Amino acid sequence: MARHRVVIVGSGFGGLSAAQALAGADVDVTLIDRRNHHLFQPLLYQVATASLGTSEIAWPIRHILRRRSEVTTLLATVTGVDVAGKAVLLEDGSRVGYDSLILATGARHAYFGHDDWEKFAPGLKTLEDATTIRRKLLLAFEAAEREPDPDKRQALLTFVIIGAGPTGVELAGAIVELARVTLTGEFRRADPGKARVVLIEAGNKVLANFQPGLSDYTLKSLRDLGVEVILGKPVTTIDADGLVYGDTRLDAECIIWAAGVEASPAAKWLGLEPDRAGRVKVTADLSVPEHGEIFVVGDTASITMPDGKPVPGVGDAAKQGGKHAASVIRARLAGDTALKPFRYKHAGDLATIGKRAAVIDFGWIRLKGWVAWWVWGIAHIYFLIDTKNRLAVALSWLWIYLSGQRSARLITQGEAEAKAPIKEVTEA
Amino acid sequence: MARHRVVIVGSGFGGLSAAQALAGADVDVTLIDRRNHHLFQPLLYQVATASLGTSEIAWPIRHILRRRSEVTTLLATVTGVDVAGKAVLLEDGSRVGYDSLILATGARHAYFGHDDWEKFAPGLKTLEDATTIRRKLLLAFEAAEREPDPDKRQALLTFVIIGAGPTGVELAGAIVELARVTLTGEFRRADPGKARVVLIEAGNKVLANFQPGLSDYTLKSLRDLGVEVILGKPVTTIDADGLVYGDTRLDAECIIWAAGVEASPAAKWLGLEPDRAGRVKVTADLSVPEHGEIFVVGDTASITMPDGKPVPGVGDAAKQGGKHAASVIRARLAGDTALKPFRYKHAGDLATIGKRAAVIDFGWIRLKGWVAWWVWGIAHIYFLIDTKNRLAVALSWLWIYLSGQRSARLITQGEAEAKAPIKEVTEA
Repeated sequence: MARHRVVIVGSGFGGLSAAQALAGADVDVTLIDRRNHHLFQPLLYQVATASLGTSEIAWPIRHILRRRSEVTTLLATVTGVDVAGKAVLLEDGSRVGYDSLILATGARHAYFGHDDWEKFAPGLKTLEDATTIRRKLLLAFEAAEREPDPDKRQALLTFVIIGAGPTGVELAGAIVELARVTLTGEFRRADPGKARVVLIEAGNKVLANFQPGLSDYTLKSLRDLGVEVILGKPVTTIDADGLVYGDTRLDAECIIWAAGVEASPAAKWLGLEPDRAGRVKVTADLSVPEHGEIFVVGDTASITMPDGKPVPGVGDAAKQGGKHAASVIRARLAGDTALKPFRYKHAGDLATIGKRAAVIDFGWIRLKGWVAWWVWGIAHIYFLIDTKNRLAVALSWLWIYLSGQRSARLITQGEAEAKAPIKEVTEA
Repeated sequence: MARHRVVIVGSGFGGLSAAQALAGADVDVTLIDRRNHHLFQPLLYQVATASLGTSEIAWPIRHILRRRSEVTTLLATVTGVDVAGKAVLLEDGSRVGYDSLILATGARHAYFGHDDWEKFAPGLKTLEDATTIRRKLLLAFEAAEREPDPDKRQALLTFVIIGAGPTGVELAGAIVELARVTLTGEFRRADPGKARVVLIEAGNKVLANFQPGLSDYTLKSLRDLGVEVILGKPVTTIDADGLVYGDTRLDAECIIWAAGVEASPAAKWLGLEPDRAGRVKVTADLSVPEHGEIFVVGDTASITMPDGKPVPGVGDAAKQGGKHAASVIRARLAGDTALKPFRYKHAGDLATIGKRAAVIDFGWIRLKGWVAWWVWGIAHIYFLIDTKNRLAVALSWLWIYLSGQRSARLITQGEAEAKAPIKEVTEA
């Protein structure tokens, strides 16, 4: 009899942990992703703010799984699922048949019906997003250096981050330090020290999911750093020259979107009604209603725990989900068909605020300030996948810590534009 | 009286060395480049072959010159020179006036009248070129893994480099090792070990500028490594499916151009007749005929030494040229208007052949094999600009040396394509 075929779509935290948890099981695994690399998303903001290079937080998927001869890694784009025929459909027209399917396709940033905002306010989900934001940030300073008009120069040096979750908070802190520490003394006309960093949040708190004491501490720390934090004001307009929040118009060149995400089209592939965030509503064991052989895990799955709390869209939830789906498949192959409900264990929340402070909420312990920053740093190095990357990230951080210098201050462009001149950001 | 204004266009080896050699002179310097980074071109092939990350061989120009308060760095695209009005023209319509001008704008790869070949056979001059080639290389292996037809799979795994100068030789050696060492065991259907690496040279020798013994050694070493070296056959056709050299048609997916360069449009800016390679014919002190205040240095200058030898288009010649132009400007400011002819001193030629061998010709000593490889490696780390980059490159090389693993195996895309699916390379 042919071996049980597991197809996993997506090699983020969810898909990769599922593949790893299937090690030794009597299955053939095909892992499909449209990227060749697993990305360590928690540090993506550091690529966007020039602290880390792209290759320091990403690894080739097939390298991670090279010793697993039963795993085939495919770089391919999935366009749908033939649920009745049990096959994943690829863009090139081919089909990959499965006995069990795990969809771990993640989320993209979403603009809540304002898709036209994306070109003015890019979000941060992929390496390309990060180098796009890095280019936008660094080009703003360059344009300010060429700009004779002081008002226009100030608009060029106004950086706005929309959304004060962990990504927004971490970006804001890093941009302040990029301007005030790294770039200081390098410009002759523009003064990076005069850069305004504005963090706008529609809700009434920064890091709303954190315990109130940590949220308040973060707000105070951001303001001490020099971030202008604006709470309770939804953004209503974004255009090429700036944005409107509440009744206020703000001229800004560089706007970053950290306000919301939307799940991948997995629900559409399965012909299911998504929830409001575009996610697939899964059953207790993470499988899909009426199709127990299909699992959806991570940011693209919607599930509530018995205590009424929804599972959050964080990397650790995706990891636990991938592992759970793998364990259900293993149990079934062993003849155990009892329902195995997914129980999400919240390990904690953590976020950095600039170079010297962080907040950590592990539930049983709460940390803030420089102690938290060190714990955050050590934990992130530990969770990186590869020894080489651990060493490289440690070296980059040590360098920033000692010298203030960020080693990845590159303005690079896409292939299509590589031969065209650098895009000018000035009005002139 | 206003200070003497020196404008330098280009921040490669020539422009940067000119700026550095003007330290302490009674001049204001404006350094203009359309990139924000100085690039260490000798290691660019290692970015293209996934050994180094982009940020390891590039530095922000304004950071290098941050302590020089009289130097203004501008990220801008030059469109011409108003020779009579003594001003450089920028793309945004503004003018930058000069008293002395140093053009160090380098060269691009050239296709000798076959510009349509560029889309099939990219060349290697910028970071974007390197990530384009890296993507092309890595996508070929990925496509081979999806390809059921063995002939098509072999065409996908056929890598052709055109031109056997140092860049072509170094690329060929690195691609062989990428296929045979780094990627081994990571594919299930494709066999990277069966990759063909073909180096095609129109002339009769590899490394034609090197001493014959080293050239012969390099040819033998490449063949021992498994590179198919084809000499004396010019390429006459390149298309989407492969190329023709001599009477032979070769199906290949991934073709890299390392066969020729053409100078930047500096001659056109100055209204001068360029030489055959598009370069400006300069006078003995590197200034332009009838315009002693304009200097042209590096790959975009054409000059022959008294012994009849042309100055080669290598980084060290650009460095020496930039330094010389700076010294002429300093002498003139001191009232010394005697002609100071440029005397190029050839320090040597060096090239690596894969991971364990290199050839070095310093004139007074010739080295080959692993000793040369170590000298090459240490020299390149020494010549890197920044301590952080020295450490990072040393770490990456140590890692490759010990584990065979290349840490920058990323397939990334341009901004425009980032949201589109990965480009499929298969015919399917």
